[in-house]
Order: sequence, then C-alpha cells, then structure tokens
Amino acid sequence: MRALTVIPGVAGSARLDDLPEPEADGERLLVQGLALGVCGTDHEILDGEYGWAPPGRERLILGHESLGRVIEAPDGGDFRAGDIVVGVVRHPDPVPCPNCAAGEWDMCRNGKYTEHGIKELDGFAAERYLLEPALAVRLDPGLERVGVLLEPASVLAKAWEHIEAIGRRARWEPRRALITGAGPVGLLAALMARQRGLEVHVLDRNTDGPKPGLVRDLGADYVTEGVEGTCLDMDVIVECTGAGKLVLDVMTCSAPGGIVCLTGIPPGSTEKKFDVAEFTRDMVLQNDVVFGSVNANRRHYEMAAESLARADRSWLERLITRRTPLGRWGEALEHRADDVKSVIDLTA
Amino acid sequence: MRALTVIPGVAGSARLDDLPEPEADGERLLVQGLALGVCGTDHEILDGEYGWAPPGRERLILGHESLGRVIEAPDGGDFRAGDIVVGVVRHPDPVPCPNCAAGEWDMCRNGKYTEHGIKELDGFAAERYLLEPALAVRLDPGLERVGVLLEPASVLAKAWEHIEAIGRRARWEPRRALITGAGPVGLLAALMARQRGLEVHVLDRNTDGPKPGLVRDLGADYVTEGVEGTCLDMDVIVECTGAGKLVLDVMTCSAPGGIVCLTGIPPGSTEKKFDVAEFTRDMVLQNDVVFGSVNANRRHYEMAAESLARADRSWLERLITRRTPLGRWGEALEHRADDVKSVIDLTA
Repeated sequence: MRALTVIPGVAGSARLDDLPEPEADGERLLVQGLALGVCGTDHEILDGEYGWAPPGRERLILGHESLGRVIEAPDGGDFRAGDIVVGVVRHPDPVPCPNCAAGEWDMCRNGKYTEHGIKELDGFAAERYLLEPALAVRLDPGLERVGVLLEPASVLAKAWEHIEAIGRRARWEPRRALITGAGPVGLLAALMARQRGLEVHVLDRNTDGPKPGLVRDLGADYVTEGVEGTCLDMDVIVECTGAGKLVLDVMTCSAPGGIVCLTGIPPGSTEKKFDVAEFTRDMVLQNDVVFGSVNANRRHYEMAAESLARADRSWLERLITRRTPLGRWGEALEHRADDVKSVIDLTA
Repeated sequence: MRALTVIPGVAGSARLDDLPEPEADGERLLVQGLALGVCGTDHEILDGEYGWAPPGRERLILGHESLGRVIEAPDGGDFRAGDIVVGVVRHPDPVPCPNCAAGEWDMCRNGKYTEHGIKELDGFAAERYLLEPALAVRLDPGLERVGVLLEPASVLAKAWEHIEAIGRRARWEPRRALITGAGPVGLLAALMARQRGLEVHVLDRNTDGPKPGLVRDLGADYVTEGVEGTCLDMDVIVECTGAGKLVLDVMTCSAPGGIVCLTGIPPGSTEKKFDVAEFTRDMVLQNDVVFGSVNANRRHYEMAAESLARADRSWLERLITRRTPLGRWGEALEHRADDVKSVIDLTA
C-alpha cells in the first residue's frame, strides 16, 4: 500500500513509499484511510523542524488529521466493518504521568506522550492502518464528507471546555467573542462560539477568498483591522494565529473578567517591548485570564463530533477548499491564497 | 470623635479631624472601631495618587482594613451588641452591573462600584462608624486580636477559590506552590496554601527580620534568590509583589498545566523586552494559565474568617508587627524594615 513518509529533522525528505499491508490482529481496527487533513504541524515536520520517528526507525508515516472506514473489527467490540472513524492523535506513555493515566493526555505533565504522525507513532497518510479501539472515535455516517475536520475541531472543543470551566469560577454569562484568524482553527472556534449563542467577531487580514463569506454565513462579523477597538468588549478571545503582535494586543484588551485562550503556536523568537506594569495592573484590577490550550483527549473528540453533527453540513464542506489525490500529495501541501483546509484523498 | 481624613488627589493632605458622632439609625450597625490595617493602597491615597471622596465632599475618611465591635444593632437582625465585625470594602453601585447585582462586586464589569476608604465611601479610620448588616462579617470572638487581617485574607481567599476553580478545568492534584513576596498578602497566601496541604515555597529578598521565621513556622521553605530555578516545578504561583521582573519570570516558568495568579498591582510603567513567541509557545504547549485577582465579595470574607479561625493564633499575631495609637497615626504609616502589617489602634 502507499503511504506518505518523512525523515523527521530532514527537510525535503517526504516521499510516497510502498509499504506492506497492515494485517488485522484481533485487537485493533483495520481501517481504510479516506482522507487526511494537512495543517501547520505537517508543514513543520516536512520542513525538518519538528517530529520524531518511531523508535529504531528512520522514517515516520505523516498525518494526524484522519478519517477512515473500518474494514475489519475485533469480534464483540464496539466497532463494526463500515464504521466511519477518526483516530485520537495523542497516546499516553506506557508509563503514564498521573494526567495521562486519568485519560487527560492533552494535559500531559512529563512530555512522554506519543502522537500519530508527529511523535514516535506512525500517522494516517496511508491507504490502510490499524487503530486501537480505545483511541478511535466513531462518527455519524452523515459526516463522511467532513469528518476529517474532527481532529482540529477536537482542539477547539477542548479550548471551549476550558474557557467555560474557567469562566464559571464566578458568575458567567458571556455575550461576545473575538476569534483571531479565519483559518480552519479560527473558523471552528467561531462555529463553536455561535453554537453557544455568542455574538462572534472574527479578525483576519484577508479581504477576499472564501473566509469572509464563511464567517458571515455563521452569523458572525468579519473584521479585517483594528483589533484594539474590536476586542475591548470581548468576554472571550480565542487567539488562533500565534502572531506575536496580535497575541500581545489581545492579552491586553479583553473586557473586565475576560478570558483569552491562546491556541496558535508561533515558531522561533519574536521580541517585543512590553509594559509589564500596565499589563499586570490591568490583569489584576480587571480579573483577566490568559491561558494556553493544546491538543485534546477522547472526551473532546466526542464533544467535537457532537458539534460537527449540529453544524450546517454544507458550511463544513466549504471549509475543505481542496481535495488532492494521494499520488499528487505535493500539490496538497502547497500554500494557496484561497485555502482554508487542504485535504489529501487517500482513496484516489 | 476622631477620624483620619484625606483629600484624595492631594499628597500630604491627611489629618486627624474631630467629626460628629455617627448615630444609630435603626437599620445599620453602630460600630466601635478597634483596629485599622495599613496597606499599599492607603499609601497611594496619602500620596495623592488614588482615591475619591464621597460625592459633594472634599475629604474622605481613610481606611479599609477594619475591625470593630458592635455598639448598637437593629432589633431582630443577625447582629448583637458586642459582636466583633469587619466591613466588606466594596459595595455594588445603586445601579449595579450584572455581576454586582449577583453579589460578585469583586468581578464588577462597569467600574461603578464604591469602596470604603478608597472610592466614594468613608473608610474605617474613625473611632465609630455605621455598617450595613448585609456588608458586615461577624468574626469568632477569639479572633479579636488578629481580625484586622480579615480584609487582606479575603483577597487571598478569593485568589485561592479562583485558582482551584481554574485548576479543576482538568484533573487537579496540585502539590507545590510558590508565593512571591513575604509581606502580609504573601504570608496569608502561604498560610492558605499550607492549609490546602501543599508544599510551599516563599520568595522574598529580605534575609533578616520576622519574615524568614514566619515562613518557616508555617512549615514552608523560605527562598531569597533564584526564582527561575524555584518556579519550574510549581503547580501554583501566587505573585504578591507586582514587581515587573518577577511577574515576567513567574509567567514564563510554572510547571506544565501551572496556574499563575497575579495579585500585586504595580504603579506606573515598566517596559521590558519580552519574547512573545516563546511565551505563547510555552503557554499553549503546556496548558499554562496566568490570571489576575482583585478584591473579594462577602463569600470570600466568610472563607477568610474560616481560614483565620483554623490558623495558629500566635502566628497570626506575629503578622501584626506594630500597633500605633490613632493619635500617632503618622508613625503607623512609616515604612520600617521589620514591618509586616502595621495597624492603627483606634481605641488608644
């Protein structure tokens, strides 16, 4: 079977390999890969800047935003042939930290987790793969065209779960949310904000392409400039760009009691002048919160599946702006101006 | 009766006035002032940098860390003559924001709250004053010598309530806490951390005076240097200095999933170079939280009263390093090297 592999740490090492077919082992699900979403982490791995191969191996099968169909499932388990499934990306270490042991590997404390397609576990850029049932999530069959969005959606389901848990430290009746960045992460954050009944503003610098329409069709406001003015009244800000200037802006301008959730992971170093006295004074006197959120555990995948099931199906389909056959994987990885989510079709 | 008053905005305007005796009105408690704690906010008001007089008046009675004994209480109410009471500092606006209306005036969203001794309501630096029963908290009579610590303790009771609520967004079994600053606020933060069974480290630059002993007698570790090394394993950091460098240090070095609570309010402007990319990456990848906490509502005063009642009484007494008669109020306001909490004795 074909699989897209890479040597972690070596830029330009990606290639399509012909690998032995995985075989059902009576414990794991044998899965037919349907689609694979491409994200910034994949680009970092392809550029040699991130990623770890499985122990004793040189090459890693890429891919963590998965969608597949069960070919063969163990007898007596929760899954059946034909089920549409997504693999949970992060796995607890065999000797887990207390959080991993409790199923909260998204909150891993010792960094010894593994991740499909990223860290020591093969990914899902393959025509077929095996999944542990405990780390597979079944989707509503109606979501087959858009289920590849489940993994990024799980990251936002976690972010919103944490935003709401933090908000409930006191009286919590949020009205307005600002999302910075109208990429797939920002748009899914905005979807979940709208599903919570919030007035939503999405900030992005693009003035054309599909993003303004996608935002407006959520019933949200699309803003292309002026974060300083926009964010003053925001009960929640979900920062999805990782851009230094924007992170500083949103950290310093939410409403009193406002919650800023950082989800964007900037590379490298960005030194800025920062008035720490003013920042601290505002944080304290206004009871403000800034927190980071990464990854997701199984519960968040299930919350994300519910969120996608409640969303407008055609709106979700519009997030997937390109579907490229596996054989032309290089095209799928190109950055194009009108991209929201680029997906590799593993069946073509 | 004597009262210490000030013209807000005018440095050096404080004086002892002879004011008319307040009279019981059948609704409020008539209270004999026993003690008044002095804190940084009082110094800011005395320096003309903060504070607002009651509408239509030039002078404000100073003082918000109170302790008094009820002289006369309305019939049929919850209070009796002889009760030891502390006044809640912040009051909701007559046209309250939704948080103030819900009793959470510490989370006020529109800034229209009033505060005894600070903002538009007379304070407690007087021999006698009136208190609304709904904003008076009764103390265990055994706490008469130390009850003046209730107001600062309420600020930490709120901080800890919020730390724990935020912590419970995921699995939460904290082990270690770092408190920066061994002033009254830091020491009360450390007391509450020890009451929660945490391993506690307190950072302060003083190497002599009462602070090291007060920290050690809590069963905590006293650290005088090296926040970078100390804070790496900390599940909770309560920042009680407001010093810019220290705020930046603790914001960037807690344990994975760590919670940094800012309580110190720095004046002015402190510009620092700040690597926002590195900060954001760490916050996101480690699920870190930084939040500010100010003030307290009635529930937090009650939590603080329980905390003080459970603490070692003689340890609490040692926090009050000086008691100065009201007639010599100027001495009470001097900064002395061995001060922890300076208190004005309103009965002498």
